[in-house]
Amino acid sequence: MEEDKSSNTIEPQKEAQRNPLHWPKQAWTHFELVRQKSPLIQCITNFVSMDFMANTLLSSGASPAMIHSVEEIPEFTPKALGVCINAGTLTPDWLPGMKLAAQVANQSKKPWVLDPVAAGGSNFRLKACLELLALKPSVVRGNGSEILALFKGCVNSNSKGVDSVHGSSDAVEAAKSLAQQSGSVIAISGAVDYITDGDRVVCVHNGVPMLQKITASGCSVTALIAAFVAVDPSHAVEATASALAIFGVASEIGMDMARGPASLRTLLIDSLYGLDEATALGQVRINHL
Amino acid sequence: MEEDKSSNTIEPQKEAQRNPLHWPKQAWTHFELVRQKSPLIQCITNFVSMDFMANTLLSSGASPAMIHSVEEIPEFTPKALGVCINAGTLTPDWLPGMKLAAQVANQSKKPWVLDPVAAGGSNFRLKACLELLALKPSVVRGNGSEILALFKGCVNSNSKGVDSVHGSSDAVEAAKSLAQQSGSVIAISGAVDYITDGDRVVCVHNGVPMLQKITASGCSVTALIAAFVAVDPSHAVEATASALAIFGVASEIGMDMARGPASLRTLLIDSLYGLDEATALGQVRINHL
Amino acid sequence: MEEDKSSNTIEPQKEAQRNPLHWPKQAWTHFELVRQKSPLIQCITNFVSMDFMANTLLSSGASPAMIHSVEEIPEFTPKALGVCINAGTLTPDWLPGMKLAAQVANQSKKPWVLDPVAAGGSNFRLKACLELLALKPSVVRGNGSEILALFKGCVNSNSKGVDSVHGSSDAVEAAKSLAQQSGSVIAISGAVDYITDGDRVVCVHNGVPMLQKITASGCSVTALIAAFVAVDPSHAVEATASALAIFGVASEIGMDMARGPASLRTLLIDSLYGLDEATALGQVRINHL
Repeated sequence: MEEDKSSNTIEPQKEAQRNPLHWPKQAWTHFELVRQKSPLIQCITNFVSMDFMANTLLSSGASPAMIHSVEEIPEFTPKALGVCINAGTLTPDWLPGMKLAAQVANQSKKPWVLDPVAAGGSNFRLKACLELLALKPSVVRGNGSEILALFKGCVNSNSKGVDSVHGSSDAVEAAKSLAQQSGSVIAISGAVDYITDGDRVVCVHNGVPMLQKITASGCSVTALIAAFVAVDPSHAVEATASALAIFGVASEIGMDMARGPASLRTLLIDSLYGLDEATALGQVRINHL
Repeated sequence: MEEDKSSNTIEPQKEAQRNPLHWPKQAWTHFELVRQKSPLIQCITNFVSMDFMANTLLSSGASPAMIHSVEEIPEFTPKALGVCINAGTLTPDWLPGMKLAAQVANQSKKPWVLDPVAAGGSNFRLKACLELLALKPSVVRGNGSEILALFKGCVNSNSKGVDSVHGSSDAVEAAKSLAQQSGSVIAISGAVDYITDGDRVVCVHNGVPMLQKITASGCSVTALIAAFVAVDPSHAVEATASALAIFGVASEIGMDMARGPASLRTLLIDSLYGLDEATALGQVRINHL
Repeated sequence: MEEDKSSNTIEPQKEAQRNPLHWPKQAWTHFELVRQKSPLIQCITNFVSMDFMANTLLSSGASPAMIHSVEEIPEFTPKALGVCINAGTLTPDWLPGMKLAAQVANQSKKPWVLDPVAAGGSNFRLKACLELLALKPSVVRGNGSEILALFKGCVNSNSKGVDSVHGSSDAVEAAKSLAQQSGSVIAISGAVDYITDGDRVVCVHNGVPMLQKITASGCSVTALIAAFVAVDPSHAVEATASALAIFGVASEIGMDMARGPASLRTLLIDSLYGLDEATALGQVRINHL
């Protein structure tokens, strides 16, 4: 981001209250930056999500690279503009690559984003996610259960795995504390998405319930967050809210024609590709808590 | 399943002959149970099928978890209501996790289902599938070639790999013997599906030929079987037939609008999500051999 | 290929100039052979592409097998009629299987095809791709950047990863040299595809720009090349051009109804499945450079 652009993408909270198009314009600006810059986003993600995630990035104008071997991370990661690390189908042999990519991203001053899938599912998984969190991601996005699990730092014995059993609003206080402790922006996905840096809390009201019936929709929006933060790393809260809103708007457009989860997924990707400014400005719903 | 429900889901063969809605009602009852209970189904499956399988489970109301590491199976598998193990892209490093999950499922009194993909494709693969079979899955679902390969316990030198070269009816006798030897319910997919516990043979006449042109459609229905058996473990034959019939009905509905295999896959998932009782009761075709 | 068939599929360059249907007929003949013979194609490919690749092969009439373990390659690969090896999500542990499959294919006199995904992305990756190239694939298909990286045999420091930053025409001379050096047919995908054996250069003008917005579309067409070459191994240039043209035609048909990249992917697979002779003959556009 050049200096003159940052004045467009960050404005005081009061301005947002005065101007109802403040957030929609910001979301659109971020999306246009992704389309213009076509940021190379390295994804180290689970097997389930690879296809949907890559297509989410491509349809949004970003350039995905699914590269996870420790052999090429030192050389490849510095070329990426952002990194997305996802704990979905975690095994011990993938963890060194994830940590190395996080470290190289940090050294290269590139943002990286963590998706702590099913963080409370097992001690092994929670420990891995906490180790990744300690490597200071710019943003962590999860559902309420996952963020609570990270916050508690212990296995949530009620966890049902990857699906959320906690409402996203319940976890907001935990998210604020976690953001303060970790220094990362924390985003909780749900009926309403909450994004916090430990101080401010921004809410995104876009999206449709049926997204929960599409596997890896959460993983894919995390990758989109990586792309949005990559083009505006100094405003991670705003970029994260923008990505969640744009993805949500695309799902709302898709929902108009969807017959079920599979057609919604297709229409969502198509809508990301075809989204225009008027629609985005008319549908993005973001506000401060 | 509570005691009073089991009287609904299992009835004598005569009842089925008297009441043509016996089986359709049973299939619908199982499907409704899946939607109500949203069983957590752990899947250890091949790379090709992960996305389609997870979406099949989600659209049916189940909750998929693709978790395969030995590090978390002892802790995670007991939380699952059922486990699906699939030999598709097998390598030696995945086998310990598969075996451990089967053992933990057994200890936890949870059903697990085996999909012996391309069992006759190599000695390595057949040996692995036979070792898994020895761990007593509740249900094994394969095509005719795969079930015959397991039965023969030796490499089928005519095997073409994952596609079936044997008609499903040819393999019925082998399936009965295999069921008796293994104690597992054996399901053979094909133009007609056959499900047997070694004694009874139930036939499912739903489905469309184009399913064979969609990769991982067999894998996905195996996961659906796991979900159906998970909500009614004491009636594995009935639950398996119900899952095959419901998946088949969804494909038939999809086929009305499909232009080819890819749109059929989308429509199938959408139809699973939207399937209503009247349609199910009108289209499920199950009978005893 | 029987002797009498080869006279249909290869004709002198002059014939192609006299008869504008020479190439379209050849492309259709190859496609029909795939549908008739249903060649078993073993794919050792990246995690992103597995689903799309398998569905591309199935919808075209071929029979995919995603099998990559060294334990079964010696036994399984000889059963395949062709092998597709793709470097996408490469790690050191996958490389021995790739090399072994290439060697067994060579010993079995079966063609194998290499997709050097992001060959210039890192030294590790380039070295691996060059080692695979030394095992004499029948065909190598990549974008301009990838072919140039192989040609230069050194890391292309401008590489953006898997997306092409070089026009395909820029790389034609490099491709010719590479074909001469390696003995492989080299295919460069782009707005125009170029296929060369080091002597002749054949151009394919089919396809749509939006294919670049679908992940693994390049990987999938490489697998289709493997299927086409498998049914006509002695005419690798022609079979490769035919596969690229047929895939391109299917994308053109799909583009008529597509709303974006995801619906295009669905329509492309459907179109491959449903493609008829009249359409193929009317739309295939191939010529000599």
